[in-house]
Amino acid sequence: MTQSDTGVADSGRKHRRPLVNLGGLSRFFPILGWGREYNSSILTSDLVAALIVTIMLIPQSLAYALLAGLPPVVGLYASILPLIAYAVFGTSRTLSVGPVAVVSLMTAAAAGNIAVAGSPEYLAAAIALALLSGLILLAMGLFRLGFLANLLSHPVVSGFITASGIIIAASQLKHILGIPSGGDNLIEIARALFAHIGETNPYTLAIGIAAMAFLFWVRKGAKPLLARMGLGARMADLLAKAGPVLAIIATTAAVTVFGLADKGVKTVGEIPVGLPPIALPAFTPALWSDLLVGAIFISIIGFVESVSVAQTLAAKRRQNIAPDQELVALGASNVASAVSGGFPVTGGFSRSVVNFDAGAETPAAGAFTAIGIGIASLFLTPLLFFLPLATLSATIIVAVLSLVDLRKPLELWSYSKRDFIAITATILVTLVDGVETGVLTGVALSLALFVWHSSRPHAAIVGQVPGTEHFRNVRRHAVLTVPHLLTIRVDETLTYLNSRWLEEFVLAEVARRPDLKDLVLMCSAVNGIDASGLEVLESLNRRLADAHVRLHLSEVKGPVMDRLERSHLLHDLSGKVYLSQYDAFEELAGPAAETAIASVPDIGTEREEARL
Amino acid sequence: MTQSDTGVADSGRKHRRPLVNLGGLSRFFPILGWGREYNSSILTSDLVAALIVTIMLIPQSLAYALLAGLPPVVGLYASILPLIAYAVFGTSRTLSVGPVAVVSLMTAAAAGNIAVAGSPEYLAAAIALALLSGLILLAMGLFRLGFLANLLSHPVVSGFITASGIIIAASQLKHILGIPSGGDNLIEIARALFAHIGETNPYTLAIGIAAMAFLFWVRKGAKPLLARMGLGARMADLLAKAGPVLAIIATTAAVTVFGLADKGVKTVGEIPVGLPPIALPAFTPALWSDLLVGAIFISIIGFVESVSVAQTLAAKRRQNIAPDQELVALGASNVASAVSGGFPVTGGFSRSVVNFDAGAETPAAGAFTAIGIGIASLFLTPLLFFLPLATLSATIIVAVLSLVDLRKPLELWSYSKRDFIAITATILVTLVDGVETGVLTGVALSLALFVWHSSRPHAAIVGQVPGTEHFRNVRRHAVLTVPHLLTIRVDETLTYLNSRWLEEFVLAEVARRPDLKDLVLMCSAVNGIDASGLEVLESLNRRLADAHVRLHLSEVKGPVMDRLERSHLLHDLSGKVYLSQYDAFEELAGPAAETAIASVPDIGTEREEARL
Repeated sequence: MTQSDTGVADSGRKHRRPLVNLGGLSRFFPILGWGREYNSSILTSDLVAALIVTIMLIPQSLAYALLAGLPPVVGLYASILPLIAYAVFGTSRTLSVGPVAVVSLMTAAAAGNIAVAGSPEYLAAAIALALLSGLILLAMGLFRLGFLANLLSHPVVSGFITASGIIIAASQLKHILGIPSGGDNLIEIARALFAHIGETNPYTLAIGIAAMAFLFWVRKGAKPLLARMGLGARMADLLAKAGPVLAIIATTAAVTVFGLADKGVKTVGEIPVGLPPIALPAFTPALWSDLLVGAIFISIIGFVESVSVAQTLAAKRRQNIAPDQELVALGASNVASAVSGGFPVTGGFSRSVVNFDAGAETPAAGAFTAIGIGIASLFLTPLLFFLPLATLSATIIVAVLSLVDLRKPLELWSYSKRDFIAITATILVTLVDGVETGVLTGVALSLALFVWHSSRPHAAIVGQVPGTEHFRNVRRHAVLTVPHLLTIRVDETLTYLNSRWLEEFVLAEVARRPDLKDLVLMCSAVNGIDASGLEVLESLNRRLADAHVRLHLSEVKGPVMDRLERSHLLHDLSGKVYLSQYDAFEELAGPAAETAIASVPDIGTEREEARL
Repeated sequence: MTQSDTGVADSGRKHRRPLVNLGGLSRFFPILGWGREYNSSILTSDLVAALIVTIMLIPQSLAYALLAGLPPVVGLYASILPLIAYAVFGTSRTLSVGPVAVVSLMTAAAAGNIAVAGSPEYLAAAIALALLSGLILLAMGLFRLGFLANLLSHPVVSGFITASGIIIAASQLKHILGIPSGGDNLIEIARALFAHIGETNPYTLAIGIAAMAFLFWVRKGAKPLLARMGLGARMADLLAKAGPVLAIIATTAAVTVFGLADKGVKTVGEIPVGLPPIALPAFTPALWSDLLVGAIFISIIGFVESVSVAQTLAAKRRQNIAPDQELVALGASNVASAVSGGFPVTGGFSRSVVNFDAGAETPAAGAFTAIGIGIASLFLTPLLFFLPLATLSATIIVAVLSLVDLRKPLELWSYSKRDFIAITATILVTLVDGVETGVLTGVALSLALFVWHSSRPHAAIVGQVPGTEHFRNVRRHAVLTVPHLLTIRVDETLTYLNSRWLEEFVLAEVARRPDLKDLVLMCSAVNGIDASGLEVLESLNRRLADAHVRLHLSEVKGPVMDRLERSHLLHDLSGKVYLSQYDAFEELAGPAAETAIASVPDIGTEREEARL
C-alpha cells in the first residue's frame, strides 16, 4: 500500500500550512475555490442567511458607529464594501465582518487622541485608522507575521475584553441618562457622569431602562417562550436575536407618537440617504504617524478576535481556515472600509453566529448582506430619524456585558499564579488607563513572566537506580552516586533565556564538590540548543577545564547532535559524548562505582513541589 | 547512611540560590565571610596584587574618563570609593570594578543627549547616570530581577560589544590625529573626522602611531621577549600588561623634553590635586527622567559583563558568585561613584584578570587598590600634566580592538540562522544608530525570533510500531494507524506562544479526515501547560465535540496532571485520559485495529529536516 493511499503520510507533507482549497490562485482568492461549486441550493441558503443578518446588522452597525463616536450612518458604510472584500479573500465560510464593539472602542480611543468626537477631523481619523489597519494587516499577511498575535496570551485577551466591556457599558450610560459625558477609561467616564448626573432626562432614561430590560429578557426568556408558542428551536433562536430590531421599532414609534424628541430625547436624526461615497482617503502622513500605534493595536486585537470566531465556526462543520490568508482578507476589508468612508472592522462574534445559524454556506452570504445593507441605506434611513440613541446604547450595553467575565481571574488564581497576575494587571490597567496601555501592559507583563519562568528551568542531579541502567533524581529516588562524578539532567531546551541559569547552576554544584573530576550533562530532554546555549556549554567546558573537571555529554538527541557538529564544541570538549548515560556512568565511575553511595530520597522539599 | 553524609542530597536543598558564605548577614555582606578568615599571608598577596593593579589602573581610569567625554580626573574618582563598596558587598573574590570601555561609551552617548561634552551639565549628567544606575541595580538586586539580563542573548551581547569596540576605536581617532570630532555612531564620527582631517597635527599623530605600535607589539611580542630575558612566565605576563604605563612615561617625557605642547600636542593638563569631593548628587528629577533609559541600558549591560567576568574567574578557583548579590554590589559601587563625583562603573575584564593573575585572594585587594589610586590622585597628578591625550587614546584603541570579533557572525551563520540575524542586526544598528538603539534592536529582534520559533513547535502524527507498545512518527517509521483514530504527539511545553499553533494544527488535521471519531493528544513531552494552553485544550474539546470527535489525552506527566486537576478540562473532556498511549490505542482502535494501515516513512521532507 503506498503512502498516498493511506492519506496520512501524504497529508503530512502539507500540514505546515493548511490549504483551504486547491492551492495556486485559490489560496489567495478563496472565492475561486468555493465559487466553482456554487449552485442554486447554496444560493437559497445564502440568501436566507443574508436577509436575517441584514435585519440584525442595521441596528448593530448604527450602535457601534455611535460607540466609536461617529455618525450612525458610518456604521452602515462600514457594513457594505468590507463584506464584499471578505467574500473574495476570506477563508472562513461563515465569518461576518463589520463594526464590532471592542474595535469600535479602540477606534474611539485612538481617534479621540487626535480630535473631538463629532468633528470632521475625528471622522477623518477614523477613516485613516481603517486604512492603516488594513495596510498593517495586509503587510502581516504578506510577510507571514500572524505569529505576532501569539504575544497576546489568552489571559491578556480575556482580561482586555472584560475591561473593554466594562468601559463600553459605562461609556454608554450617558445616552441612557441623556447627559453629555466622555472619557477613555473608567475614571474619566465616572467623573464626567457624576458631573452631569443632575441633567438626566427622564424620558430618555425611561426608554433606556425599558430597552435594556426588554433586551436582557429577550436573551434569557424569549427563546423558551417562542418555543412554547410552537416555533422550532432554530427559528425561536433567530427570532430572539431579532430583539434589538423590535426594541428599535417600538422605541422609535414611541418617540414619534409622543413627540419625545421635543422633550429632550436625543435621536439619530437626519441620515444622508444613499450609498457610501467611494474615495481614496487623503494622503496625510502626519495624521497617520499619530495614529500608527492605535492602528497596530486595532489590527492585532481585531485579528485575534476574528480568527478565534472563524475557527470556532469552521470546526463545527470540520472546515478549516488559513490564519495568514485571514490577515489578507481582514486587511482588504479594512481598506475597503476606508475607501467607502467607514471605520475599522473585523469578524464579529454575534453576527457570525447568526450568519452560521441562519444557514449561510459560503462567503456569498456576506456579499448578499452587503447588498441588503446597501438597500437599507438607500431607502430605510429616513425611518430612523426618531430612533432614540438610548435604544442603541441599550443594545450595546446588553451585548458587551455578556463579554465581561469576572470569574476568569478567580479560575486562573487556582490554575496558574502567573496567568492570574497577567489577567488582573490587564483588567486594572485597561480600566484605569484605557485600552492601549492595558494591552501593552498585558503583553509586556506576560513576556516578563514568561522570561522569568523560562529562565529557571528544571534540572536534576541524577544517580543510577541500583541494578538497572536507569538514572533518576537523587532527591526523589534511592540511587547511586560517586563523589568524583556528577551527572546533571537538563529538562528543557537550552535557549538564551535559560542558558545563563544552567551555567550558574552547574558552577555552583561544582564549587561545592572539591573532589569532582567529571561532570556529565544528560541531554535526553534537550530538544534544541541555540547559540547562547552553545556559548554556555563552551564556556562551561573552558571554565571546568580551568578547575580540572572534564565535561561530558550523554544522550544527545540526533538533531541536536547534527547541529553541535557544526560548532567547535565537540572538538574542544574536554570529555566525551556518550550515547547513553549508562555508558558514561560505567566508564567514568570506574572502580569507584563499587564504593558508590546510595542517596536517600528527599521528596518534600519546596522546590520539587513547586517546580518539579 | 544518611543524606547529609553523602553531601549530595543535602546540597540539593540549597541549590536554588547558591550561598557564597555562611548564610545570614554574610549573604548580604560577603565581607563578613572572608573577613573572618583573613590572615597575614592573604594580606601580603592582596597588597602585591593591589600595587600592580593600581599601576595599571591609573592610565586606564584616565583613558576611560576621556572616552566618556569627562575630565581625566573623574576616572580616578570613579576608581576609589566604588572599589571599597564592592569589597564590602561583592561575592567575587577577584573582580575589579571601575570605569570600563563599553560603559564609558554608553555614558558618553546618554550624557551627550543632555549636554555638550566638557560642560558642567555634562559632568552632572554623568554623575546622575552613576546614581541612577546604582539605584536601578540595587532595586534589581532587592527584587531579584537579575533574570531580566537573560533578555540579552549571547549573540546580542557579542554583537553589541563588537560594534561598540569599533565605535570607540573610531571615536578615539580624533585624539590620535589631534583634530576636533564627535558623534555617537560610526556615520557621525566618520563625517566629523573627514571634515577636519586637514587639521591633523603631525606631532600628535606621531605620538599616537608610535604608542599604538608599541602597545600592539607589547600585546604580542613582549611576553616572549621578557621570558627570553630570563623572567618567569607570570612576571613576564604582568610586566607586559604594564605596557601602557611605559607608553605614558615615554610620551609624557617626550612632550616635556621637546616642548611639544607648544606645537599643538594636546595633553591632560592641570588635574585638581586631592581626593574626590564627597557630596550627595543634586536632586534633579527632570534630568533623571531624561537619563532613565540610558541608565537602564548601562545597568543591564554593565551587569551582564561584570557577572560574566566574575564567573570566569571564580570558576578557575572553584569559587562561586551570587548574581543577585552582585546586583547589590554593583549598585552600591555606582552609588559610591556618584557621591564621589565619578561616573558609571562595573566589573572590568582586563583589570580583573590582572588582579587575579597578580594573586589577589579577597576583595580586600580592591580596597587596597582604592587606597593606591587615592594616593596617586593626591601626589601623582602633577606629573601627568604633559601626558598626551593621543597616548591615552592609543591605549583605548588597542584595548577595545581586542573586543571586536567579526568572525562570530560567520560562525553563527553556520550554527543558527536566527542567531546570525540577531548578531548582524545588533552590529549594524549599533554602528549606524548608536548603542541604545543597537541594544534595543537586538533585544527586540531576539525576542521576536524566539516567539516566532516558539510559535511553531514540533508535533508529529504517530502510529503504533507493529508488534510493540511504541508509537512513532508516521513520516519516519512504518507504523499502524486507523482512519477513525488520530494520535498527535506534542513535543513542547504548551505556552501561550505556541498553543494557538497547536489548535490550528489539530483543526487542520481533523478537517481533512472525514471519518475521524477519536483524537488522542500524546503528552509525553509536555513539561507544562499554561493558562493559554489549557484554554486551547478546552476550546479544542468543545470544537471537536461540535464536529463529533472525542478528545483524549495520553501519557500526561504527573505535575501537569496535578495542575489539570485544578481546572474544568478533565471534567468537561469528551474522551478519557489514558496512562499510556498503548492503552489508548488498544481501546480506541478496537476491532478496527486489525484493519490498521501501515504507513510508509517519508524521511526526506523539508519540514522534518528543517525542524525536527
